[in-house]
Parts: sequence; C-alpha cells; structure tokens
Amino acid sequence: MLFSVQVEVRLREGIADPQGATIERSLPQLGFDGVQGVRVGKLIRFDVEAVDEAAARAEVTDLCARFLTNPVIEDSEIAVRAAAGSER
Amino acid sequence: MLFSVQVEVRLREGIADPQGATIERSLPQLGFDGVQGVRVGKLIRFDVEAVDEAAARAEVTDLCARFLTNPVIEDSEIAVRAAAGSER
Repeated sequence: MLFSVQVEVRLREGIADPQGATIERSLPQLGFDGVQGVRVGKLIRFDVEAVDEAAARAEVTDLCARFLTNPVIEDSEIAVRAAAGSER
Repeated sequence: MLFSVQVEVRLREGIADPQGATIERSLPQLGFDGVQGVRVGKLIRFDVEAVDEAAARAEVTDLCARFLTNPVIEDSEIAVRAAAGSER
C-alpha cells in the first residue's frame, strides 16, 4: 500500500535561526510591520510503500532520525496517510 | 490581535527538485526502499499582529507573493490562526 508522508523538520527551540532572523529584519523595510518570531524549517513530502500505516510510520521515523534531520539541533513532525487511490 | 502563521513554500509541479532527487537516490543505499517522489519545500512560521484574521491573511498573502516565494517556480499555502492567549 502506498502512503503519502509529510515530514516537517524545524530547528529546536533556542537554536539560532539566521535565515528566519534575516527575513524578520528585512520585512519592515518592505513595509510589513508586526511580524515576529520568524522560523524557517523544511517540509519534505514523499510516498512510501509499506504493508500498513504502522509499518510506514516506523520506517519514516527511522528515516527521519538517521537521515532527514540532525537530532542535535532539529525536531521533526511526521504525518502519514494512505495515498489517494492506493487501496487495491 | 496576534496570529500564528504557517507558510508552506514548495516548488511547482514539473519544476526539478535536485534536493529531493538527491535524497531519493541516497535512500536505497541506507536500506530504505520504496520511497518515491521526494519533494523538499520550506515551512516558514511566524506571528503577525493584525486587527482581524482577514487582515492578517491579506498581509501574509502579499508578503508571500513579494518576498517569501518566487512565484515563477514556487507555490505557497498559507495557514493563519489566532495565536494562543492573544484574545485580550
């Protein structure tokens, strides 16, 4: 069965986010006021073939810890759902 | 009122995603099979001060088009909700 996976990778609380800080600093000059706390993360989407949702989630959790994130400075959040039209 | 905003910036369909392709190519060597269609996007979170949700959404939409995305190659999806504890 095919599952659609969405992994959000974001910097942990307290870890400096220079990309977000740069966006935040630039906005007032462009006329956007009142924006604060900008944090930039990654959103990785893919499909994974697995026997059931639990197996898909286990594979993705492992994948996140070993490859997609740096657990020292990053947190991840995983969403797994059956891909449309994957029931056969 | 303070609103929590989440902007997903992703490459449009059909635009090459070298970062996603690299992840996809590397996975079988690490023992992860059955992963396909990897696409890497950005997820930008911030808070914005606005009179109501419509105003917040309008500001963020403008911000996206002018600053956060390159509309030629990127799509964006915006989620706005009242920040916790912002009702006063």
